[in-house]
Amino acid sequence: MSDKRTEISDLGEFGLIEHLTKPFTMHHSSSMLGVGDDAAVIDIGGDDALVVSTDLLTEGIHFNLMYMPLKHLGYKSVAVNVSDICAMNATPTQITVSISVSNRFPLEALEELYEGIRLACDHYKVDLVGGDTSSSYSGLGISITAIGTVKKDKISYRSGAKEYDLLVVTGDLGAAYMGLQVLEREKEVFRANPNVQPELDGHDYIIERQLKPEARKDIIGFLAELDVVPTSMIDISDGLASEVLHLCKASNVGCHVYDEKIPVDAKTAMTAIDFNLDPNTCALNGGEDYELLFTIKQDDFDKIKGNPHMTVIGHITNAQDGIYYIDKNGSAITLRAQGWKHFDAE
Amino acid sequence: MSDKRTEISDLGEFGLIEHLTKPFTMHHSSSMLGVGDDAAVIDIGGDDALVVSTDLLTEGIHFNLMYMPLKHLGYKSVAVNVSDICAMNATPTQITVSISVSNRFPLEALEELYEGIRLACDHYKVDLVGGDTSSSYSGLGISITAIGTVKKDKISYRSGAKEYDLLVVTGDLGAAYMGLQVLEREKEVFRANPNVQPELDGHDYIIERQLKPEARKDIIGFLAELDVVPTSMIDISDGLASEVLHLCKASNVGCHVYDEKIPVDAKTAMTAIDFNLDPNTCALNGGEDYELLFTIKQDDFDKIKGNPHMTVIGHITNAQDGIYYIDKNGSAITLRAQGWKHFDAE
Repeated sequence: MSDKRTEISDLGEFGLIEHLTKPFTMHHSSSMLGVGDDAAVIDIGGDDALVVSTDLLTEGIHFNLMYMPLKHLGYKSVAVNVSDICAMNATPTQITVSISVSNRFPLEALEELYEGIRLACDHYKVDLVGGDTSSSYSGLGISITAIGTVKKDKISYRSGAKEYDLLVVTGDLGAAYMGLQVLEREKEVFRANPNVQPELDGHDYIIERQLKPEARKDIIGFLAELDVVPTSMIDISDGLASEVLHLCKASNVGCHVYDEKIPVDAKTAMTAIDFNLDPNTCALNGGEDYELLFTIKQDDFDKIKGNPHMTVIGHITNAQDGIYYIDKNGSAITLRAQGWKHFDAE
Repeated sequence: MSDKRTEISDLGEFGLIEHLTKPFTMHHSSSMLGVGDDAAVIDIGGDDALVVSTDLLTEGIHFNLMYMPLKHLGYKSVAVNVSDICAMNATPTQITVSISVSNRFPLEALEELYEGIRLACDHYKVDLVGGDTSSSYSGLGISITAIGTVKKDKISYRSGAKEYDLLVVTGDLGAAYMGLQVLEREKEVFRANPNVQPELDGHDYIIERQLKPEARKDIIGFLAELDVVPTSMIDISDGLASEVLHLCKASNVGCHVYDEKIPVDAKTAMTAIDFNLDPNTCALNGGEDYELLFTIKQDDFDKIKGNPHMTVIGHITNAQDGIYYIDKNGSAITLRAQGWKHFDAE
C-alpha cells in the first residue's frame, strides 16, 4: 500500500463501488449484468434469467435497536432485498441470511430477529435456503442475498429509459422519513425523561412505513396483468430525487418531474407541517419508501391510467435538456439529491 | 421478547443456525436444498442446478489485519466461498461482495482489498456481478455470496455417504494452522520488541497456506475427468475431525479414520514438532485448510488410486458402529472435534 490517504467519503457510496470494481473483467457469458443496477442478472439458459441482490446492514448505521424492534428489523432486512429483486421486474424466490452478532445478544433476541425474517419469507413467498451465524466484537450485522427469476425479455434495467417515456412512481412517498422523525423525537423525549409515555398516537401509518416497509412485489404482478414492461426501473431506497438521478444517469437521459404530481399521503403531509418541513421535500429526499420508480412507453399510458397504485410524475427528455424539478409555479429547478449518504454522515 | 436469557454459546454455531431456521417452510419446488450443507441448491430447470453459498467475515473474529495484509484478505474471502461451491461438486461462476467499513480505512486500503478480490476472481474464473459498500462504526465486515453451476446428477451433498464407501481427502492438512502459529509467535515477538525482524524464513509454505489459501477448484475438474462423482463431500474449513463428524451426522453413518493415512506435509510436521505439537493433531483440529473431504464408492477406488492430489484416509461404517480414529497402534478412539468454535472463544 502506498502512503497516500484518500478519504472514502471523497467518492461517496456510488462513486466508491464504481471505482473499486472498474478493474474487474468478466469470464462467463452467463454474467448478463454486473455491478451498477439493483441486482445482478445471470443467464440460466432458455428464456430465463436469475436476478441476485445482496445487502449488508450494520447496527448503528442502517438500523438503531433503540427504536427498531428485532422482529421488525428481520422483516425489513428481507423486504429491502425483495424490493431490489422487484426493481428488476423479477419475482423473488430465495434468500440467504448471514448474521454476525456479539455476545451482548441472548438467543431470545436472535429468535425475535428470525421470527421477523420468517414472517417476511412467508409474506413474500421466498425460501430461506442458506446462511450462517458468527460472532462479532460489537453489534449486529446482517447480510442478505436475494434471488429471483424473470423472463429475459421482461427485465427492467436502470439503463432503458428513452426520451418521451413517462416517469411513474408507485404508492406514496415520504412516509417512512416522517415516521423516523417521530421516532427520533420520542427518543429524545424519553432520554430527557424516561417516565413520559411516547406520543405515537395518530402516527401509525408513517411509523409502520418506517419500521415495517413493504416491498412492492404486488406491482410486479399488476404490471404483468396489465401487459406493461417498464423500459427502466429502480426502487426508491434513498429518496425520489436520488433515484431519478440514478435512473437518468444510467439511461443517459434527462427528465422533468412535476412537484404537483408527487404522491404524498395526507398523514405524511400533516406530520411534515408539524415538523416545519415541506412535505414534497420529504418525498424527494426522505428515503426508505421502497416504492418503485419506473418508465413506460407513452403507448402504455392507457394501461396504467387511473390505477390507484401508480402515479405519472413526469417524463423523460433528452440528456442535453437536463434533469429538472418543475415547481407549483411552473419554474424549472435543477434536481439535486440530498438523500441519505452513509459515508458523508460520519 | 420474554425475559429469559439464553447465551448463544450454549448452542454452538451449528446448533444455533439449525435452531433459528427450523420454523421456516418452503414455497418453491426450485429450492432443492436449504440450510445445512456447504451451499444451497436451486433447480433452474432441465439438467442444471445452481449452487449458492454465503459467508460473512468480521474483523477481529475471522481475520486480524495486524498480520493479514488486505490484498490477501480479499483473495482469501473469495477463495473460502469458492471452496464452498466446489464442496458441492459444482463449478463457481459468479460472486457478489458487500463490505462495511469504518472511516479508519482510507480508499487505498479498499483498493488493496479489491485487488486481492480481483486476483482471486481471475484465478478461479468467477465474475464479480454485484455488491455494495457501506460504513460501519468499527472495523471491516465482508460478505460474499458465491454462485456456481452443476448438473443435478453430479451434486455431492453432505448426506450421501453410504456404508463401505471410502473416505478421501485432498492435498495435505494442518499447514494453515501451523502458519498461523508462526505468525502469532512473531506478532508477540514484535509486540515485545518492534526492532526485531520477524523470523519467517523456511516457513513460506505454511504461511502461504494461512494467508493465501486456495480453493480446490482443480479437484472438481480432476473428478470429472476421472468420471468419479463423490457420494458425499464437504470442505475442510474447521479441521478434519469436525468435518468428518458433520459428514457422518448428515449421512447418518459411522466411519474409521486411520492416523497413519492422514496427509501432513513435512514442513508442517517439522514446525509442529518445534511448537511441541503432534502434527496429526494439528491436521485433525487445525482448520482453514480448505481441502476437500469426500466419499467414493469402493468401485471407484481404481480411478483415484495413486492420484497425487487424493488420499484415502478411512472408510464409512454403519451409524451404530460409531466414528473412530484408529491410532498408530491400531487402537480405536472416539473421534472428537476441537476445531474453531467462534462463539465458544468469546
